[in-house]
Parts: sequence; structure tokens; C-alpha cells
Amino acid sequence: MRATTIHGPGDIRLSEVPDPTLLEPTDAIVRVTSSCICGSDLWPYRGENPITEGATIGHECIGVVEEVGSEVRDLRVGDFVVVPFDHCDGTCAHCLAGVHSACVNLGMTTSGQGEYARVVHADGSLVRVNGVGDGGVPDPALVPSLMALSDVMPTGWHAAVAAGVKAGDTVVVVGDGAVGLCGVLAASTMGAEKVVVMSRHEPRQRIARDFGATHVVAERGKEGAAAIKEITGGIGADAVLECVGTGQAVGTAFAVARPGSTVGFVGVPHGVELPVGRMFSKNVGLAGGMAPVRRYLPDLLDLVLAGTIDPGRVFDLTLPLDEVAEGYRAMDERRAIKVLLQP
Amino acid sequence: MRATTIHGPGDIRLSEVPDPTLLEPTDAIVRVTSSCICGSDLWPYRGENPITEGATIGHECIGVVEEVGSEVRDLRVGDFVVVPFDHCDGTCAHCLAGVHSACVNLGMTTSGQGEYARVVHADGSLVRVNGVGDGGVPDPALVPSLMALSDVMPTGWHAAVAAGVKAGDTVVVVGDGAVGLCGVLAASTMGAEKVVVMSRHEPRQRIARDFGATHVVAERGKEGAAAIKEITGGIGADAVLECVGTGQAVGTAFAVARPGSTVGFVGVPHGVELPVGRMFSKNVGLAGGMAPVRRYLPDLLDLVLAGTIDPGRVFDLTLPLDEVAEGYRAMDERRAIKVLLQP
Repeated sequence: MRATTIHGPGDIRLSEVPDPTLLEPTDAIVRVTSSCICGSDLWPYRGENPITEGATIGHECIGVVEEVGSEVRDLRVGDFVVVPFDHCDGTCAHCLAGVHSACVNLGMTTSGQGEYARVVHADGSLVRVNGVGDGGVPDPALVPSLMALSDVMPTGWHAAVAAGVKAGDTVVVVGDGAVGLCGVLAASTMGAEKVVVMSRHEPRQRIARDFGATHVVAERGKEGAAAIKEITGGIGADAVLECVGTGQAVGTAFAVARPGSTVGFVGVPHGVELPVGRMFSKNVGLAGGMAPVRRYLPDLLDLVLAGTIDPGRVFDLTLPLDEVAEGYRAMDERRAIKVLLQP
Repeated sequence: MRATTIHGPGDIRLSEVPDPTLLEPTDAIVRVTSSCICGSDLWPYRGENPITEGATIGHECIGVVEEVGSEVRDLRVGDFVVVPFDHCDGTCAHCLAGVHSACVNLGMTTSGQGEYARVVHADGSLVRVNGVGDGGVPDPALVPSLMALSDVMPTGWHAAVAAGVKAGDTVVVVGDGAVGLCGVLAASTMGAEKVVVMSRHEPRQRIARDFGATHVVAERGKEGAAAIKEITGGIGADAVLECVGTGQAVGTAFAVARPGSTVGFVGVPHGVELPVGRMFSKNVGLAGGMAPVRRYLPDLLDLVLAGTIDPGRVFDLTLPLDEVAEGYRAMDERRAIKVLLQP
């Protein structure tokens, strides 16, 4: 099959690789109908994560079940499914506790930006989109929002859950990438009264406002914290969503959190040193981590199908899979928020 | 008055210092009837915190209101009170949110190991022990448990609240000092089914068992984590109370916490680097910090007066204030768990 591979920093190619096959009777193979590029794919692309030369890349996709193992019970060939980037068995103690991202049989999509993807523990992982099946594909208008359910929307949602967002809260979202924007959507959907997004990019600000942001703070660092202090009457935010993962973003998150609140973090930490002294003296907690996508997926799918949320708006560039390298460049140079790929 | 002063590492004296006086109309002066030595007093004693030569020391005390400022409304001279180590106005946004330890008018007891202590925002801070007043002193049998309400018991309680302890939980307490033992008492009072204390000291193990510990793990580091993994069926603890504040203790706390759980931390962090990568991949949160003593004090006082909890058992040595230096030595050398001082 054709699949995206990485060969070094900045070196993304569309290559011919072996088709994935069923390795366990609980596996499924999904024919990818849409995939996308994640902000976290930029870490290896920028040489900030180790790279295995020639490895396939891409962990977000949706598509049609092509083949199932002998022990798969709940899915049939032809089902249209959302593929959580983190696969899980749905039956271990951690899954039962809602922490599917710590499943004892955790798997990951590894060829999402390709034509086919292997999914382990298909019954525990995949969520069928009802009303679309037998090899059919959903209404094209729905595709971006379904695609967003593979990772970015559940991840933004997890930030809000981890931060304990409640109706009436003042919530600050650090990061205006696709995850941050989904964090804004999550906070406003949960009933936050004020949602402040930290963003200096006009197109992202516009989506944030459409997603429910009531305030935009363009300043960073101390000036940004001062602006938020003013918005919160000197008290600080009731909940903070950290959706970047850099040391600076984490520092800002703790600087604007009110005492007793929680920073919900979903940006993969890179070079982060947590401010333990401030956390202690101000009683500001930290929660979150890798999103348990499967936990939130059924409810988020309902919200998408009902038209309540449209997270697909984070995709502002669609490219054929052939042009995946241009997709990486566009995201790396911040010309695109998030790139949808059509095989 | 006579009060304990610190002059350098290991150099504790009982000195003659000026009496504290009312500086603000919301202040009160308390005549100290009992005080004690805190584990955190050992940081400067061991030279690990900066020392102001000749400064008074001691932040835990109970006693009788001796004098009140003109704006104090709820307290009268002669009232017997518990003095939270952290003073608060009770009216600011942080106090109203239950985070009294981040009060905008935060104060601290600074001469608790002396004959008198000044308390700022007396109405917001002090809690009267009803049925004891007009210069009276409580039943001597009650004194240790009332004394424990100034800091150590609310601090252990805060660890359990921050860690989200619920009925039926398996809770691990890292630290067998007085705070850790109070954490055990808190967890069992909240209905935890299993309470595991990490302790290698027989007298402390005994108190922990009396406080409700169901398991004692004497091993440390990897062996300790392995022992807890076995107790928890390989899953990890539902809640972990970190009651020490060293890097090793914090590392153990995160090693034994199950995915999705929270480490409640109340040990003042010294040389702690938080394992942000593990926290992210396992979704283990951190919450807590300096205890909002005033928040918990009324309820804990009721539990003490009803005989439901007896946190005073953590005091295993009582000395006259004259012998305060010996008290520090005894705690430093771990000959005593916690020392009660009688002026």
C-alpha cells in the first residue's frame, strides 16, 4: 500500500510499504478514507523526537472495516468507523476506570496517513458510525468532524475534563493549535461562562470565537498573565487547559490558574519542568495526559451527529495523500492549523 | 516573654524576646497553653532552609485569647482557641473557595513555641473550643488532639482530600511522620477499605495500625513499589498521600499510583523534580499543597470532641518549653515522632 513515511527531520515521503495484516484474532484492518496530520507529528518532523528511518507515521484516521480477526464480535466488514489513535481492550481495570489510554493492551495507529491501518483490540477500540455502512462513506460535510474524533477533539475534551471545567467557570486555554481550539469548544460545550483563548493568529482567533471563546489574549508571558488577571478580577482562572506541551506554555498555565484550581494538560511535554513550589504554595494541581479517546468517543460522536459541535472546523487545508509532504510543511510553517488528507 | 529562637543549624534556644502586640485592629494575641514542633521546623534546624539568626520559630499552638483588636467581633478575651498555623481573613475569594492557605491576607504564627503569639485576622483564623472558656483550659486528655488541629491533622486531612479519597478506596500513605500518620487517620475516617502505610519504624507502624492502616510496607524504592503492586492486584493505588516532600518520596508516590489517580501532596517540597513524562503517560495527577487549616478545622474539632478521632496520639514526647532544644534533637534523631511543649 501507499503510506506516509519519515526518513529524517523534514523528510516526509509517500512510500510503498507492505499492507498491514491481522496479527491477532482481535485485530481489524481499516481501509482509511480520511486521515490527518497531528501537532505531535511535528515533533519528529522537527527532529525533536527520535526517528526510525523509513517508519510509517500518522495516528489519526477514519475509514471502513476491511477485515476482522476471528475473535472480533461487534464489528463487521463494511462498517464505517472512527479509529481512536490509542487502541484499548475495553475490559482491563484501567479501561473500566475510564483510563483507556493506560490500557494494559494499549496499541497505537501507526500507518494512519496511509491506505490501511491495523487496529488491535478492535472491539474495544473502534466506534461504528451508525447509518453509514456496507462500504458507504458518510456525508462529505461530516467527514472533517468525524475525522476530528480520532484524536484532536477527545484530546481537547480530556483537557477540560482533567481541569474540572464546570458550568459558570472562567476557563483559560493555553494554545491555539487544533487541540487548543477543541479545548475551547469543550469548555464552552460544558457551560463555561468565560472562555479565554491565548492566541495571536487572527484565523485561529476567529475559529476560537466561533467555538465559544469570549476573550482573546494575544500577549504572552508576563503580559499575557497580567491580561488574564484583569479578566478574572485579579483572582485567576477557575480551570486552565494546557494544550501545547512546552515549558513556556506550562509556565503560563500555572501563572494564570487561581489557587485551588487544576491545570488540565494534554500537550505532550517537551522540556517541561513543573513549578512544584508554586503548585504547593498556591494549591494548583495538574491532571490529564494522553487522552482516553475511547472513553469520550460515543458521546462526542452523538454531539457531532446532532450538529451540536463541529470540531472539523479546525481543518483549514485538505490535500490528497500524494501531497502529504506539503501538508507537513504547511503545518510546520503555521500556514495551516490542521491538514486533512484524502487517500 | 520567653520564646524559642533559632540561631543557626542545630542551634535552638529559649530566649527573652519582646511580647507580641496588636498591630492591626483585626489582630488578637493568644497566650499559648501548648505548642509543638513540626517536621517542617527541622528543615531550618538541619540547615536546609535559610535562617534569620535569632528569629522566633514555631507555628503550631493552642491557647487562650489574651487581647483582641477593636475590630475583632467573634472572639472574646478568655476564649480557648485552636490557632491555625496559616491565618486568613475568611472573606477573600480564595477563602470563600476553601483555599484559605492562599488568602490575600495570609499570615503565619511566628512565635508558637513561646508564651504568646500574634494572630492576624483573628475572626477569620481562630476557632473557639466551646465549653471551655473564661481562661479555662480543656481536659488534659484532650490537649494533644486539640494541639494536633493547629497543623498536623488538617494537613494529613488535606492530603486525603486532594488525593480524592473515597469510601472503598485503596490508599497508600508515603511517610510515617506525624503528618503521614494523620493521613492514615484521614483516609480511614473517609472510609478507605485498604490503607497502606510505608513505614519501617515499629512505634510508628503501631500508631498507623491504630489509626486504621490495614497494611504496612517496610520496603522502600522499587521493593516498596513492588510490594504495593502486589497488594493492589497489579493495578496501583486509588489515591496516594505524599507526606514527606523529598524527591524519593514523591518518586515512590507516583510509582504506586494507578493510572487516572491523584497524588495528594502536603510535604513541603525540597529538591523535588516531578516526573512529568510519567504523569502524562499514566494520567496521574498531583494536587494539594499548604493546607487550608481553617477550612477543615470546625469539622475536625467536632470529630475530636466526639471522640471519633484522636490525632493527639502522634505526640510521643512532652517536654516543658525550657527543654525545647532537646525536643528538636529528639525529632531530628527520630527518637520522637512529634514533641508537645508546655510553656
